[in-house]
Parts: sequence; C-alpha cells; structure tokens
Amino acid sequence: MKQKVTLKQIAKELDVSISTVSKALKDSVEISLDTRQKVKAFAKLYNYKPNNIALSLKNRKTKTIGVIIPEIVHHFFTTVIGGVEKVANEKGYNVIICSSNNSFDKEVINLEMLASGSADGFILSVAKETQLKKDYHHIEETMSQGMPVVLFDRIIDEVVCDKVIIDDTKGAQTATNHLLSIGCKKIAILTTVDYISVGKLRTNGYLRALRAYDITEKEEFILKIEDIDNCEAEISEFLKDKDIDAIFAVNELFAVTAVKVLDVQGKKVPDDVSVIGFTDGILSKHFIPSLTTVSQHGEDMGIRAAKLLIDKLEGDDEVTEEYRTVIIDTSLIQRKSTKKIGSDPNN
Amino acid sequence: MKQKVTLKQIAKELDVSISTVSKALKDSVEISLDTRQKVKAFAKLYNYKPNNIALSLKNRKTKTIGVIIPEIVHHFFTTVIGGVEKVANEKGYNVIICSSNNSFDKEVINLEMLASGSADGFILSVAKETQLKKDYHHIEETMSQGMPVVLFDRIIDEVVCDKVIIDDTKGAQTATNHLLSIGCKKIAILTTVDYISVGKLRTNGYLRALRAYDITEKEEFILKIEDIDNCEAEISEFLKDKDIDAIFAVNELFAVTAVKVLDVQGKKVPDDVSVIGFTDGILSKHFIPSLTTVSQHGEDMGIRAAKLLIDKLEGDDEVTEEYRTVIIDTSLIQRKSTKKIGSDPNN
Repeated sequence: MKQKVTLKQIAKELDVSISTVSKALKDSVEISLDTRQKVKAFAKLYNYKPNNIALSLKNRKTKTIGVIIPEIVHHFFTTVIGGVEKVANEKGYNVIICSSNNSFDKEVINLEMLASGSADGFILSVAKETQLKKDYHHIEETMSQGMPVVLFDRIIDEVVCDKVIIDDTKGAQTATNHLLSIGCKKIAILTTVDYISVGKLRTNGYLRALRAYDITEKEEFILKIEDIDNCEAEISEFLKDKDIDAIFAVNELFAVTAVKVLDVQGKKVPDDVSVIGFTDGILSKHFIPSLTTVSQHGEDMGIRAAKLLIDKLEGDDEVTEEYRTVIIDTSLIQRKSTKKIGSDPNN
Repeated sequence: MKQKVTLKQIAKELDVSISTVSKALKDSVEISLDTRQKVKAFAKLYNYKPNNIALSLKNRKTKTIGVIIPEIVHHFFTTVIGGVEKVANEKGYNVIICSSNNSFDKEVINLEMLASGSADGFILSVAKETQLKKDYHHIEETMSQGMPVVLFDRIIDEVVCDKVIIDDTKGAQTATNHLLSIGCKKIAILTTVDYISVGKLRTNGYLRALRAYDITEKEEFILKIEDIDNCEAEISEFLKDKDIDAIFAVNELFAVTAVKVLDVQGKKVPDDVSVIGFTDGILSKHFIPSLTTVSQHGEDMGIRAAKLLIDKLEGDDEVTEEYRTVIIDTSLIQRKSTKKIGSDPNN
C-alpha cells in the first residue's frame, strides 16, 4: 500500500508553500500551469486524499454522473435513468450506470469503483440486501469524501442527503380509495415482505385507506410475497376460493399475474374483481385488459434527481450543506381493469 | 493541450533507460516500485499514449467491462447486460453501462470516456445513427489503443473484431416457415426501415421463406416503420381491409400493437390472423393471447460476449489477433397467437 501524504509533506517535497499546494489542487490560476501539474501528479502518485471537503466541488472534472440501481432488467429503473440522461445531456454531463443486482457487496464495489475517478457524484437506489443489513457506511463515506449522493425510490431514512421519492403511502391510499369509491368492500393486497421499504409503505397506505372507511383489515386479505419472480403459485393459492371484489397489487407483475390467476379460477376482471397495480410500465399499458395503476413517473424522478445532483456539483460551497427531499406526486391512471365509478353502486 | 511525449523523452526526463520506462509502464517487477510509480505518474502527467499495443493487455488493471447499448429503456438490451454481469461476477470483473440513446455523438463520447481509464474493454451494440452515418472511427481507434471490443446484435460488418449475433435471417425464416406450415398463405411483415441492420436481415429471412414456398412476395404486404414508438396509426392504416391470414412482426411492440389493431378491426387472433413476434420479452410472455415469438436469448448473448471479451483481456498477446463471430441460435416459442399445426389444414 502507498502511504498517505499530507498537504504539508507535498509542500515540503516540492519545495513550495502549503498554500500553493492547496491552490494548485483547486486548479487555481494564481498558480502556474507547470506547478499545478506537478502538484497534482505528486498528489496522485502518493494517493493524496483531502481530509475535508475544502476542495471546492466545482473543481471536480469528470463531468460524469454515476447511477447505481438495484436491477437492470427493470422497466421502472430504466425510465428513471432516461430522466437522468435528459438533464445530463442538457447540462453537458455523461451518465455511467451500474447495477448492484440487489447485492450489498456489489453496491459497495460499484460505488467505490465509480468514486475513484469515474464520477463526480451519485444517484442511487439501494439494494434489497443493503436495506436488510442496514449498513450504509459506503454511502456515508462517499459523501464524506465530498461526492454528493442523491437517493431515489429505495432510500434510507437514516442517511442525510438529497432524496427523490414518491409518496408510496399516499399513492397506495389513493389506489385503495378508488377501489372503495367504486363500491368494492373486500379488497385484498398483494405486497412484498416488509423489509422492502416501498412494499411496506404501500401496505401502510392500503391499511390507512381501509381505516378511513371504517373497514377492519383482515390478515387473510394480505399476501406478502418474497420471491417476486415466482409469484404465480403463491398468488394462485392465496386467491383460491377467496371472497374478494378487488385487488390492490404493489407492482405491475403481481397485478398482471393476479388477472391471469383470476381468469383461470373463472373470475372476470373487472366484472367480478377490480385490479389496480403500481408502476405504469409497458405491461400495464399493453395488457388486455389494460391496467388501472398508480403511475410513479419514473422519468420525472430521474429528472429531479439529476437536477438536485448537478445543483450540488455546481453550487457554491456554502450551500452544499443543505439537503432536500423531493416528493414526486403519483397519479392514478384509470384503464380497464377496474369498474367505472358508479357502474355498480348497489353491489 | 498537453504535448504528447515519447518513451524516449520520458526516459531522458527521468534519467533512466527506455527499456526501464517500457517495463515500468508494463508494471514489471524487475523495476523498483518507486521507479514504476514515478514513470507512470510522469506518463500520465504528459498524457503518454503507446503507439502500439506492446503493452500487454494483461497489465490493464481496472478489471472493468464497459457496456454501451443504444437504448436503456429496452428489455432485450437489459437482458444482455444481465448475461454480461453473470460472467463478470464469476470472473471478478465490474460492469459499467452507458447508453448512446442511439446518438452517434453520445456513443463516441461514452466510448472515449470509458476508454480513458474506466474500462479495460468493451461490449457494444451500435447506435442507429452510427449505422446510418457509417462512421466507425471511434471503435477502430479504441481497438488500436489495445482495448478489445466485442460487438453484439447491432454489429458492423466492416469492423474486424469479436462479434456475437443471432442469425436474424434464419430466425425470421423459421418464423415465416412456421406460419406457412400451419397453412397461412397471405403473410404480411411489420418491419423497420432498411438501415436498421436487424430489421433488414429479418425482412430478408421473411422473403427467403416465401420464395422457398414459391410464394411471390407482395410489396403491399410489407410495412417498413420508421417511428417505432408511434407505430399504432401506421399499422392500423396498413392493416385496414387487408386480406391477410398472418403477420410476422420483427419486434414485440409491433406484434402486440398488431393484435390490438386487429381486435379493433374485428379480426381475431389466432382464428382469423396468426401473429408471430421477435424477442421474447415480458410483453410476449404476459400478453393475452401470449405471443408466439422468436427468442433471441439475450442473456446467452451477454454471456458469450463477456466470455469473448474476458478471453481477450486475459489471453496471451499472441492470440489477440484472432477474432471470432459467435452466432446464437434463435428458437421459436409457440404460444397462443398462432394456430396449432394442422388445426386448420384446409384453409
């Protein structure tokens, strides 16, 4: 391992003042190009890292944004990246993407790799395993090295940084309210296990809506699915002979799978059971019946996240200690998997 | 701009032999760590680039694979990345992804950015605009700097490098043959404009199958779509009052859109018209009726591309001048959008 050097040692070695070294590292024009190059080469050679963020963020020069997402084969995350790229293109930034594949280790490795010279700052949605482990040291270290991080969607409450989220609770509440408003009373929820923050929040929204309507929640109406990719058998077993008139599914795949399972079990959507999903992806749009769903506006999330990050990268040092949380409004997109309001008021 | 320096100048400046500089740049243990660090820092400082690939590829050290794809919100490309990541994880490589967004300029910028220290080699599917411009200098330059490139799916015949493709012509021929074998005679094709290489090849496969059955192709049965994202009106206009019994669509979206348009026009799939798509994505699997389709095995493509690249990165210098083209077999997945063989032999 190379030893760490201090500003003082660099100054001594190159026979210049500490102030010169500091200014040279900040690329100040007060210092001759030759000296700046020498200082930077030396600092690089001896792996010099500043102990504080005294170096203005403005001096970072990769003009690249690192995006780390939990899954790459995932429509929602790719739409968020689409939004990030729009803003990045406008502002002259490149975008580099890595997938953690929901692994804590890969998230740490990717972040370290990109932080060591490939990107100026990060837009990140954390891996399932990170949420489970509750170990966020890699994110905190990256920030303490002066690289801003914007978390989106799967965020961490404990980490203080810019965040872009949707109001999952409110979105789920709106969806459940809609089912109640069209006359549904026996509403099941297909959700994820609790450690997935968005699944938990959406379950909370579902429960909140029921309570506001004075409907007692039933344990047997709640299915918490762990293995998302193989949900069909579980959903089939759960729905078998169940007396329900609506389903709220916390993602698109659960919703589509529920419609198919209901079809096999001889129930019609929306005549017998209304179904609402979450995420307005290609499946929701193109499925027959097309799915009523809560749109997360992934592209908007990406746009807002990129703006927050670039603001921080280009802002004055004095304001970089301010953190914002942007909440993107969800909206209910009504399609054909739910009855129309008032279509069956007496049922 | 910094001036370019030669090995000789570095040697003179640091008062060592040219051989020492060369070995130091190759990270040879014959040279002391201190000298190696000095030489490398100096070379970096003066932007030294080797004029030949004398530096063994084995000495590159980022252990990172750069993947550049034309679109990020695209299921097929993300499945290829899934395959790349599988192999990369096994072999201890990281994966960095960039999207060219089908822009030539962005492809060039991304490649240059990643080539300057972030990745050891590349897996690339070229942008539409690059195919149109026929300008491949950026890919050739990257290779001439000693960084191997593996092209996949949207490849360039003129560039000599490792390639992973599917046999688009054969895949399309198999699909069209299947339609012919179930008794269809009036088969339309929904394809892309000719400069998209895969669209053109699939059109060729369609024509080849018709000719093998002695069926004369009809100009009015071929629709070449430019604006993929807004294809519905065009497909609707094309299919209006058209006397056909089958459609071969060169992608999933065209196939799904055709089924919907046919439904609106009062024709049933597969009873009146059989439909086959290309790409086995989530839409094909979950759509009702589920789509018969040509599977491209995206994950396999990614696996093979990553293996080719890592072979080159880790291989002996002597064999790096060998280039391979791997052709991934397509397969026809029969689902519910086509009639069963023999189900309607007299029609």
